[in-house]
Formats: sequence, structure tokens, C-alpha cells
Amino acid sequence: MASEFDLIERYFKRPVDPALLGGGDDCALLSVTPGRRLAVSKDLLLEGRHFFSDVDPYLLGHKALAVNLSDLAAMGAKPVACMLGLGLPTESDVWLKAFAEGFYSLVDRYQCPLIGGDTTRSQRDIVLSVTVFGEVDDTLALRRSTAKIDDDIWISGQLGAADLACRMLSGEFALQADWLTLTREALEQPIPRVELGLALLGFAHSAIDVSDGLLQDLGHILTQSRVGALIDESLLPLHPVMQQLPLAARRQATLAGGDLYELVFTAAVSARATIEQISQTLNLRLTRIGKIVEHTGLTVLDALGNEVTGLPDSYDHFKGSA
Amino acid sequence: MASEFDLIERYFKRPVDPALLGGGDDCALLSVTPGRRLAVSKDLLLEGRHFFSDVDPYLLGHKALAVNLSDLAAMGAKPVACMLGLGLPTESDVWLKAFAEGFYSLVDRYQCPLIGGDTTRSQRDIVLSVTVFGEVDDTLALRRSTAKIDDDIWISGQLGAADLACRMLSGEFALQADWLTLTREALEQPIPRVELGLALLGFAHSAIDVSDGLLQDLGHILTQSRVGALIDESLLPLHPVMQQLPLAARRQATLAGGDLYELVFTAAVSARATIEQISQTLNLRLTRIGKIVEHTGLTVLDALGNEVTGLPDSYDHFKGSA
Repeated sequence: MASEFDLIERYFKRPVDPALLGGGDDCALLSVTPGRRLAVSKDLLLEGRHFFSDVDPYLLGHKALAVNLSDLAAMGAKPVACMLGLGLPTESDVWLKAFAEGFYSLVDRYQCPLIGGDTTRSQRDIVLSVTVFGEVDDTLALRRSTAKIDDDIWISGQLGAADLACRMLSGEFALQADWLTLTREALEQPIPRVELGLALLGFAHSAIDVSDGLLQDLGHILTQSRVGALIDESLLPLHPVMQQLPLAARRQATLAGGDLYELVFTAAVSARATIEQISQTLNLRLTRIGKIVEHTGLTVLDALGNEVTGLPDSYDHFKGSA
Repeated sequence: MASEFDLIERYFKRPVDPALLGGGDDCALLSVTPGRRLAVSKDLLLEGRHFFSDVDPYLLGHKALAVNLSDLAAMGAKPVACMLGLGLPTESDVWLKAFAEGFYSLVDRYQCPLIGGDTTRSQRDIVLSVTVFGEVDDTLALRRSTAKIDDDIWISGQLGAADLACRMLSGEFALQADWLTLTREALEQPIPRVELGLALLGFAHSAIDVSDGLLQDLGHILTQSRVGALIDESLLPLHPVMQQLPLAARRQATLAGGDLYELVFTAAVSARATIEQISQTLNLRLTRIGKIVEHTGLTVLDALGNEVTGLPDSYDHFKGSA
């Protein structure tokens, strides 16, 4: 195996603005705009847990950065830079090139240069660790703890596709080739909603990205804001393939399905026109799915206005830990 | 296995100053002193590669943070915060408690609070990813590229112990119980030279921490500063056990042995008294081992003033990639 130094040189060395890096060597030396805060997020992605062993390396490179950028998006932070730790059991030129291309596709798209990290040989499994840095005004940052009573609850994009694709690929759900064709991009190439997070600064009251499931992640907003929510199931923006699923499987995918990386956010009723405008500008579906209420807890109403009971697992888990 | 959320709550949740964290949730929101730079370093540590499977979890927790703090030390940055990603194949209360204690021993010592990260289940191996943040004045930061002709070359601590312990534990070198007793602490509980890095600000011309071996890491200073060095082998501060090794093994351990985490730095001759004073204040051995010279390349002279030929491996590797 080439030395760690060589691998970084060969696959991950692209010019970075010296004003950002400040001539760092043992560390990167980030400059930060006075009066703003540095938003930092870090995720570990492991073979067998977060991705399959035979994953397309381009898609893996893309996703590794996407899920971290999604955390910046959820706070309304502007991407500044990222770092990568990569552990590989074997060295493959083809694999590394494709991985780097996928990773850099988002580096370039969000102007989020790679400023450091390391590659190393792992014993058996592929290991990925990404850290992202963003900047945000302290007073504007989109937090989980600041939802207000009577806020509308909004979600970007569509629900259910990533979860269904993941279950089909893992064998948990019978594979249907046509469904997989329709859903796997949502799982393998999620788009972090960075532009949306930035557009929401100043009037959205709270936000989170949906990584563990709509109910569970919205639940974090409710707990931390000490409020409740009413969700109208008939308003949920379902991926088209969801209509073909049995009710229980559909609810599992849409209400509890993770790996989504859309933003759930809340805003005053008076902001509706602005949000519709943002939706048009970004060419991104934004859907009102319910409202924040005074009492705590989360209630889902079906099309007839009846409370849905026996909500899928991840919600129960959230209740257990709240 | 308990949920990721539970594990963080249970083992890694200690109060952090809200002024530092700024109410972040999807991200930590770091505040940075105006006019200073944020120094960031990130390392991936993998079972089978960086530590043995049966490693004492307390020592692993200690070392995971130590090696990252060492990067801050090498730039003269003051620790501000850290993040941890931890992948474990099984959940063990005893293991996690001991790991957290080792990790927090350095969090507390260097006032470097844990501000985020995640724990997750790995397929087979223990995986660790640490990111550290420090602050440093841009103009004072200790870089690799600013060594000056006629500088003294200094090193902290002693050479050889960690490498010998590692070779004995891996079976590469015949195990001698009395030697292991004398050397394993250097391998398993390295002390990051944070205070030394801070003390050197303002007059040391360049610095690096020795993670890959003295010759290789000093080589980075030489390459980036476009200078050469003369090292006097008889001046090297050897760990006492080194005297009992055959010459070749001793040179391997002292000149090429990694996992050391001492600082190599250069400073003008006029700074000698100041450095001796720092050595006394910190109760830390600091040794002059050579000088920076005009021509490029690194020459090691033996006690008779003859050039040492056939330098150990890591130096050749460095030459190959420089």
C-alpha cells in the first residue's frame, strides 16, 4: 500500500484558498468571520452499518459528505470546509478515484474545500469519518429549541423512497426492480438542503434534518421546544411509489423512515407566502404538514381526522427516550 | 444495543460552557476569538492498525485524544474543544466507562470539552475518530515551513521507548518483561506537549510533533523550509533501555520510531537560555540535537563525527516522497 501521505497527495490534493487555510500543517488553521459562529458536525460511516460492502464508491463519496452538509443545512450554516478520514482494507486506484470524484462533486457544488484528514489501512472494513465546518450568525441559526405555538410545520421534498430502497437492498422487503429504480437515488445520492437552510434564516423558527425518521426528528424539536404537534397524514408529500405499499409499510417508510436528509422546519403562518416563494426559487417542493400546538406530544391525524394509533417504531423509541 | 442517543447520554454527557457551544444542536456552534485562527486536526484510529484488539479501554481513550492534542501542541494552539466518533462491535458498560474515563482525563487536564460526535455499532472492529479544535494567533503559530539557517534543533522528552514497546507487543521484537515495564507507558499514555507548544510561541521558528519518526518528521520541516540539518547522534536523548539494544535496533527505535508525540522544534541560538528556562518551568527535558544548515538534506553524524550511512527505513521513505 502506498504511504498515507501518497494517497492524500494522489487523490485528495486540490488547491485550497490560502486565506482560508492560513498555512496550517499539523492542523488546518481556519479563519472565522468576526461575530459569527463556526458550525461543526462530524459523522462516522461504517461498512455493514451505514452502507453495503459493495457500494458504488462514487455514491459513497457523495453520501459521506452529503449527510454532514445536511447538518449544516439544518442550522442554516454556510459550508466553509470539510475534513476526511478514510480507512480502507485494500488500496484500489479505481475505487479511490471514484470515491474522490463523488466526494468532490459536493465539495465543488457547495464550495466546501477539503482542508485535511488522513487515509489509513483498516483491518477489514471500510471506515469513513467526515467533519464539516460552516458559518452562521449566532442570532439567526436555526435551532431545535425555538418552535412556537401555532407555527406551521413544513417539510422539503418527498417521504419514503430512501427507506424503501434500503429495505429492499437489505432483503428486509421483497425486491421489486421497478420500485428500486424509482427509489434508490434518494438513498444513494441524497441532496443536502443547504440552499434551503440559508433561505430560511431570519424567519423560520426551528429546523432539523430528517436522518432518523420524520416522527423521531420532529420529536426532537417538540421536546426541546416544549411544545406538541398535530400532523395531518393526508398532507404528507409521499413519493409516488408509496401509494402501492400496504398501509403499515407505507407508514413505516414515511413516518419512521430514516436516511432522508430533507429539512423539517416550523414558521409562523404569516411566512407562508415567503416560503412558497422560496420553494419556487429553489425549485424544491415544500409542504405544510401540520402545526405546533400547546400541549406536548405528537399526534398524527388520518384523512378522516381520527388519531392514528400504533405509530411505527422509531416514534416509540423517541417517546421512550424523551 | 442501546440507541446511539442513549450511549452519548450515558457515557459522554458532561456539562459544557454554553458560551462555547452557543446552543447548537445539529451542529456545535463554536465561538472564535476575533483575530485568531481556529486550529483543527482530525485522526482516525483503527483496531489492528493503531491499537491492539485487547487494548485497555482507559488507555485507548487517553491516547485517542492525546495524539490529536499533540497536533495542536505542534502549532502552539490552545485546546478549545473536541469531538468523538466511536464505532463498537458490541456494547460493554465496563469498556465504555473505562474508555470515557481515559478520554476525559485529558479533556479535564487540557480544558478541552467534548462538544459532539456520535457512537455507532461497527461490524467487527473498534473505530475511533477524534477532531480537536484549538486557537492560535495567526502570526505566532508554529509552522513547519519557517525554520531558519543556523537554528538549533531541539527535541522534548526521550527517544525510543514507544517504538520498542510497540515492537515487543506486536511480536516483531523478542519480548523482555523488564523492558516492557520500562517502555509501555510511553506507547500507551503519551503526553501531548501542549504546554510546551504554548511556551514556544513567539520565538521558536518551526515545530512538528514526532508521530512517524524523528528523521521523517524533521524531514517535513526541512522540505517545507527548504533547508538541511546536521544531527549529532551522540546528543540524542535516549530512553535508558536503548543502551541495551544492538546498534541497528537502537537507531531504528530512536531515529525512525513513531508514536512518540514529542515536539521537534527549531530556534535561534540566542534563544537557548529561554528554552532552558522553559525546560525547568515545565519540568520537561529539552535537548539540542543539531542545527539547521543551508544545503538541503539531513545528515546524522556519529560520536566520531562520521556520517551515519544506511539510515533506518522511515527516512528512506521520506526521501522517496519528498
